[in-house]
Amino acid sequence: MGSLMARIALEKRDVELVGAVSRRTHLQGTDLADYLGEEAARGVGIFPDFACAQQQAGAHVAIAAANSLLGDEIPVIESAVAAGLNVISIAEEMAFPAASDPAAALHLDEIARDAGVTILGTGINPGFVLDLLIIVLTGVCRRVDSVYAERVNDLSPYGGAVMTTQGIGLAPEEFDAGLADGSVLGHIGFPQSVAMIADALGWELERVAQKREPIVAVKERRGAHVTVPAGKVAGCRHTATGYVAGAPRIELVHPQQIEPGAEGQPTWDLIRLRGEPDIEMRVAPEMAGGTGTASIAVNMTPLVHAAPAGLASMKDLPVPRLAAVRT
Amino acid sequence: MGSLMARIALEKRDVELVGAVSRRTHLQGTDLADYLGEEAARGVGIFPDFACAQQQAGAHVAIAAANSLLGDEIPVIESAVAAGLNVISIAEEMAFPAASDPAAALHLDEIARDAGVTILGTGINPGFVLDLLIIVLTGVCRRVDSVYAERVNDLSPYGGAVMTTQGIGLAPEEFDAGLADGSVLGHIGFPQSVAMIADALGWELERVAQKREPIVAVKERRGAHVTVPAGKVAGCRHTATGYVAGAPRIELVHPQQIEPGAEGQPTWDLIRLRGEPDIEMRVAPEMAGGTGTASIAVNMTPLVHAAPAGLASMKDLPVPRLAAVRT
Repeated sequence: MGSLMARIALEKRDVELVGAVSRRTHLQGTDLADYLGEEAARGVGIFPDFACAQQQAGAHVAIAAANSLLGDEIPVIESAVAAGLNVISIAEEMAFPAASDPAAALHLDEIARDAGVTILGTGINPGFVLDLLIIVLTGVCRRVDSVYAERVNDLSPYGGAVMTTQGIGLAPEEFDAGLADGSVLGHIGFPQSVAMIADALGWELERVAQKREPIVAVKERRGAHVTVPAGKVAGCRHTATGYVAGAPRIELVHPQQIEPGAEGQPTWDLIRLRGEPDIEMRVAPEMAGGTGTASIAVNMTPLVHAAPAGLASMKDLPVPRLAAVRT
Repeated sequence: MGSLMARIALEKRDVELVGAVSRRTHLQGTDLADYLGEEAARGVGIFPDFACAQQQAGAHVAIAAANSLLGDEIPVIESAVAAGLNVISIAEEMAFPAASDPAAALHLDEIARDAGVTILGTGINPGFVLDLLIIVLTGVCRRVDSVYAERVNDLSPYGGAVMTTQGIGLAPEEFDAGLADGSVLGHIGFPQSVAMIADALGWELERVAQKREPIVAVKERRGAHVTVPAGKVAGCRHTATGYVAGAPRIELVHPQQIEPGAEGQPTWDLIRLRGEPDIEMRVAPEMAGGTGTASIAVNMTPLVHAAPAGLASMKDLPVPRLAAVRT
């Protein structure tokens, strides 16, 4: 993900890639051009930490791309903020940190203001499809009674770590055991998306109920790195329901699986608002996950650089847009 | 439109409707509750101008809903700004004023900064469907090569003024004469939408080519206020193409007509981005025009009130969202 972001940043007119940060000691001090095999990166250094990148290369914005959970990401963000850097994080729980840890969100806001920098969590999902885009569509509504959205995507290209956290390849009973012992996670980010939507619409969220069910292959399914025979788990159907005043008003559905096409399941992003007016939006096929996350993180760089100091979520900043590509 | 906005504002938790402005002298000094037939508006005065509304009712934000063209709207905005009010305008040419008159845009920015207020143009289109929503979707793109979008809507509910400007009911040769003499206008707002998109993506726009063609009824079409026999004009197919470096990179298509369903034409909003990744989004049926424009103008009120001083377009402010409804 870091390499893809670096390649994208190199293409941008208004973003200058001045350094990379890696914990791998054999890379530190080498030239990013050699690592990427990309001459455009010649002269871009690989540093051991954000402080070095800031001091030696004059960085303004750090993009953190290594974690999913808030607990893992906060020390990374703290080190970047301590170096005087604005931070864009693609950790899923950073999309709306108050959802899982209000105290941590206050802390991040405080250190950002003290340092005069902006901290933003983003990504395709959470950060865009199942939260920001929904919020944007409510902008033309007089009244919203309920929100339903689903993202049906294809995990076929992804590698081993994603297969494991989705329980892909397991027997159905192993999937249930994996849920119980925490090795099967499904989607990370639902509480964040639901909370961001509720906050934007002024709904007082009482609780978020989540459900994870195995998608059992009826036919053999093939991904880039795994083949699942019929009867085994091809993915995880993960849903989240947000309750407001006792009623389910936000329902998000995210069945993630390999090769859904093998069983005739098309992929899409769907948003259905009930209210005045009703709105039904569909993007088909679904917006690309990996490219989408890397792109939105880089695209937000100029907006984060220009934003007021503090912890921001996607709904607080000007609308995302392509950062201009060099011509 | 003003009445609809007033009704919507009365429903909002974070917006307080404190006054209405009307040029109709017999309404001035009366109570808006009587005019609207809406007890929630009891005590809301109708004033002759923005200065009175500000002084007597303590208004902070004015919504201007009476014009389409910049030349008509600027004096209205000037009077509101002179009264110390932030301004939201639904005049189509205000969606991106620099598109038709860069000097006027500079002037508006200057008076807004001097008065410490924000001026925003908005609406469903221009202001949302064929510009802002496109810009938002490019946020997850690595590269955008071209933009194609269409809004196929149903004008059946609209009244006489809209029928006239779209040439509805005319013979095809009368439609052409109407284009020539300026009585048939088609859609107002294409140069604004194209310029907003180009500006957001960092594309240097060379020119915008527009085309207006009659949609001739094959079968009889019925609207709320007009019936069009076969052979007469049922609407205007208006297109705009934005050229960048000699190439058409933005194409917007907006066939507006009454009762498209009579000839099997469904309505929708469609956005198709070519680049990496390709994105195809469809909202069907199309997002409601009248409710959408009134709603987004009211919904933007808290965001405009909180925005820094100056002339803003929709792409400069935090994403639109439903302003919370009273419970």
